[in-house]
Amino acid sequence: MEAVTAAVLLIGDELLSGRTQDTNLRTLALFLAPLGIEVREARVAPDIEPEIAAALNALRARYDYVFTTGGIGPTHDDKTADAIALAFERPIEINPEARAVLEGHYGAALNEARLRMARMPAGAQLIANPVSKAPGFQVENVFVLAGVPSIMRGMLEDVAPRLRRGVEVHSRTLRAPGLREGEVGQALGALQAAHPEVSIGSYPWFGADGYGVHLVARSANLEALDRVAAALIQLAAEHATPPT
Amino acid sequence: MEAVTAAVLLIGDELLSGRTQDTNLRTLALFLAPLGIEVREARVAPDIEPEIAAALNALRARYDYVFTTGGIGPTHDDKTADAIALAFERPIEINPEARAVLEGHYGAALNEARLRMARMPAGAQLIANPVSKAPGFQVENVFVLAGVPSIMRGMLEDVAPRLRRGVEVHSRTLRAPGLREGEVGQALGALQAAHPEVSIGSYPWFGADGYGVHLVARSANLEALDRVAAALIQLAAEHATPPT
Repeated sequence: MEAVTAAVLLIGDELLSGRTQDTNLRTLALFLAPLGIEVREARVAPDIEPEIAAALNALRARYDYVFTTGGIGPTHDDKTADAIALAFERPIEINPEARAVLEGHYGAALNEARLRMARMPAGAQLIANPVSKAPGFQVENVFVLAGVPSIMRGMLEDVAPRLRRGVEVHSRTLRAPGLREGEVGQALGALQAAHPEVSIGSYPWFGADGYGVHLVARSANLEALDRVAAALIQLAAEHATPPT
Repeated sequence: MEAVTAAVLLIGDELLSGRTQDTNLRTLALFLAPLGIEVREARVAPDIEPEIAAALNALRARYDYVFTTGGIGPTHDDKTADAIALAFERPIEINPEARAVLEGHYGAALNEARLRMARMPAGAQLIANPVSKAPGFQVENVFVLAGVPSIMRGMLEDVAPRLRRGVEVHSRTLRAPGLREGEVGQALGALQAAHPEVSIGSYPWFGADGYGVHLVARSANLEALDRVAAALIQLAAEHATPPT
């Protein structure tokens, strides 16, 4: 079984200005990993249609799936639907199914602004929104999700069954307090060279509780992963400096 | 005075796997805004040299500055220096100044792994690291920073004086509890159309404390900004639904 790949496109000026701290990339990565889908790249685009479209076209040509977040609400700064239509060179229209969902939810309160949330590229397939009703949508290999984290997470339920699954990459994490990367770097490099089927990462931490390193091994091959995990435990024990 | 633009390139498999929640993009955006430098795009790249180099080349050609974070430590998975050399088509070498900094800090404990942190593209200019000593570096309009947030922040001190300043974009945020985007969307769109020199964003929230919208106006023109801020206050008051 081969790897299935994905990219994430986060949309919104608020992410680039620092107003909002994104958490959707991490949520998506953790949701996709057990399905055997690896996030290989992510981008953050401003609320500018041609910018969003260019990023989307670069990503959708290269990865099996693209997940976008943000920009599908009822206000003027929600430009994602238009940008997706631009990228796919499809007309944008009021999607009749989406309109029906909004009519059912809002009734007489369905005004012009709210109806914007039914504007989608022609041929889009809805993604159900169990949280606030206004749907996301799919066009080919692109899934267009809300930016509000709770709504984005809710939409993933309807997305999951549509995804082709790949081989799952498993990971083992060793938390090694008192270890310094510089002490263990050379041995770690040798271990990585001896196990090319496992990807070894080294992430130092510094905090009120002292310092240390998280050593992370990742592989689809569970036997190889366990061999490397055992070697990491030994290596950390050999190189840890007791705190002074 | 014109806008000065920047892009951020976050480097590391741990950001794409969901292991690590990035916070550096937001820190950089909030650091650069008062200097009049706007972050216009961000990307997250894996620990693969040609991927990092391709992203860097796309960004450095397009924006005044690029800030990278991550991948400059002492372990085998730290590939940023090689990737930057690849992007600039410069040889990579042990930078003598960086070597001297590491010798001063580590003394006899300066081993092969730690010496990796002095490997830089030829002609790189050091960026001081007041936290853990191992320096970052600058090549032309690219600033190569650490990934550990506290170290990244520390390096910005040495970066700030090297940056050309632009016109600062100011912002006003109105927190409007009880407001629904769909109720205010049309009026908000009209307000945006009437004030093209101000950028208006609308960000809904849903929480244990109810719901509402943050309305954010951004502009370099303070008078226009204040006019729009006043209009937003009025608009929110007119459209807010009292909680039931």
